[in-house]
Amino acid sequence: MATVLNPPIENRHLDLDMPLLLDGGQMLPCARIAYETCGTLNAAKDNAILICHALTGDQHVVSNHPKTGKPGWWVRMVGPGKPIDTDRFFVICANVIGSCMGSTGPASDGPDGTPWGMRFPVITIRDMVRGHIAVLDSLGIDSLHALVGGSMGGMQVLSLAANFPERTRAVLVLASTARHSAQNIAFHEVGRQAIMADPEWREGDYYAFGKGPEKGLSVARMAAHITYLSEAGLTEKFGRRLQNREEKTFGFDADFQIESYLRYQGLSFTDRFDANSYLYITRAMDYFDLAEEHGGMLANAFAKSKARYCLVSFDTDWLYPTAESRNVVHALNAAGLPVSFVELSAPFGHDSFLLDVPALDRVVQGFIG
Amino acid sequence: MATVLNPPIENRHLDLDMPLLLDGGQMLPCARIAYETCGTLNAAKDNAILICHALTGDQHVVSNHPKTGKPGWWVRMVGPGKPIDTDRFFVICANVIGSCMGSTGPASDGPDGTPWGMRFPVITIRDMVRGHIAVLDSLGIDSLHALVGGSMGGMQVLSLAANFPERTRAVLVLASTARHSAQNIAFHEVGRQAIMADPEWREGDYYAFGKGPEKGLSVARMAAHITYLSEAGLTEKFGRRLQNREEKTFGFDADFQIESYLRYQGLSFTDRFDANSYLYITRAMDYFDLAEEHGGMLANAFAKSKARYCLVSFDTDWLYPTAESRNVVHALNAAGLPVSFVELSAPFGHDSFLLDVPALDRVVQGFIG
Repeated sequence: MATVLNPPIENRHLDLDMPLLLDGGQMLPCARIAYETCGTLNAAKDNAILICHALTGDQHVVSNHPKTGKPGWWVRMVGPGKPIDTDRFFVICANVIGSCMGSTGPASDGPDGTPWGMRFPVITIRDMVRGHIAVLDSLGIDSLHALVGGSMGGMQVLSLAANFPERTRAVLVLASTARHSAQNIAFHEVGRQAIMADPEWREGDYYAFGKGPEKGLSVARMAAHITYLSEAGLTEKFGRRLQNREEKTFGFDADFQIESYLRYQGLSFTDRFDANSYLYITRAMDYFDLAEEHGGMLANAFAKSKARYCLVSFDTDWLYPTAESRNVVHALNAAGLPVSFVELSAPFGHDSFLLDVPALDRVVQGFIG
Repeated sequence: MATVLNPPIENRHLDLDMPLLLDGGQMLPCARIAYETCGTLNAAKDNAILICHALTGDQHVVSNHPKTGKPGWWVRMVGPGKPIDTDRFFVICANVIGSCMGSTGPASDGPDGTPWGMRFPVITIRDMVRGHIAVLDSLGIDSLHALVGGSMGGMQVLSLAANFPERTRAVLVLASTARHSAQNIAFHEVGRQAIMADPEWREGDYYAFGKGPEKGLSVARMAAHITYLSEAGLTEKFGRRLQNREEKTFGFDADFQIESYLRYQGLSFTDRFDANSYLYITRAMDYFDLAEEHGGMLANAFAKSKARYCLVSFDTDWLYPTAESRNVVHALNAAGLPVSFVELSAPFGHDSFLLDVPALDRVVQGFIG
């Protein structure tokens, strides 16, 4: 058989034929899960890798983003001959429920034919995972070759490995945590309050007005964006350099490059993301505490797992610092599971898992095998 | 002479009889500086200590806050027999120009009899210091026994020591920096954008409406407040504990104590602080770069100083981390000035300089003499 040089990329969706029972006790009827696949599932269906995306990520791991036209968010890691090699593996990435890129979320029409808005039920990371499991079921995949995710993707990975232990043989968690800390919750709460303070939010019923809480969402994104970067990285990239000017203006324009950059990050985000989705997904992250779901002992979460694990943290990540990964490693050790752990040095802060860190490529390639 | 057991506290103000020439090139006519004094100025007028307040601080170091009724912000450090002993020293604290506690700021009436709003000129830390110097002149104080400040107060202290070197004999800088970093600017920009995004801000002309951009100011305060506390401190104080409930509500109420706390911090701030003042003072801080004012060499800033210096940082302060204080110490060393430097261990993050840190009391008392 010839090597597949251009593995097929497909954007597909699954409409669940059963309501999804959620952790909050509610049912989500008629859920749709949008997902992307790249590569070819072999006959044994044992070469699948599920990638879980981060808070504002989506299923477009390798295909161009339909709204921004930008390349898929992990093309540097996933593709033919890349560390996650789509010549060999069948890669799946599903948009989480609650999001806004095709899977059912607050912007989707509810049972009455109008957008859910804030009537959408509050979901958890485990609920997102239930959506992923439905996709695996529909594809006939009993057990994944590997399960991979960074940041909120890592939370889904940990939740899937704990709650559906028979569904994966290898688990790779990047720059993540088994629970949201008070500081993590605090930053998310600032973002939510910024959105809800915007009168254009209209208690979440903004869809008919053609305009959402763009200013509030932009502020939320700006605050969050700071937490994705390291102080040293910001200093190196921007320092106190001025933006297209020789002198300070003694006004409130974006005099500094960092101000201009942040404003751009905030505004451009509003073009591609739904404000209510931001509320729901941050809430799911804040609620995440894998130990709490398992009697307060994180090791218990992995009692039935037989997978091998790899955790990667970054030395400049202050959002989910190395101590959070180490916490998971200790629990895996206590559960007697094979685990490797590395703290990589990279200047980019939390976002390092998405950026050019050659050492990460080697770790991923080595672990995926 | 009997010991003064209850040193007099006075709240006074100075109306400048000359316009204040500002760094931005504009004149501030008719500026008023509100200030508090505690203790008695001796006949030689050489026992004065000027305390400079932080961003949202004020002149009420020891007297009750007129709006909140709470005790002065530094009663634990300043008073009879305290580390800054008002039985011996005459303590002065002036509200910075641009603020809203009596000194001229954007909420004050401008020359046309209506509030300045955004017509108020953009000010710098050095402009605030010019106001302090005017107060010292009016009191006939040529040289301070000591100059003390934390956070933005420390910036004023450094600026005064550099620009008016003959006016002080000792300089104590707590949890501060000689320049705002990109990350510092970034957090402030989030706050400003939150305020300006609030339609109640009305381009700064909200004074006639009886209601300002309270939601925006509240979000700004919430974001800033996170930076004042350490991650470990937040975990210890709040962790993931729920607020007056047994279970998560699967909604968007303040389920977690940290959410409830932050919301309270945001809302209560709007009762005591003017949103435009927040814009102007954060801008002044972002513009602060003492080296830049002195040919790019921080040591040059202190070329004419003959004072002795003490710098204190806190190991959990990630807003102005120890490296920023060390940077100042290196410059003072290069300038050949006597300087002592200590990094104190305290769990409270940046706010440690305001809180119960006995080691700080000893350092302050020892240095003040």
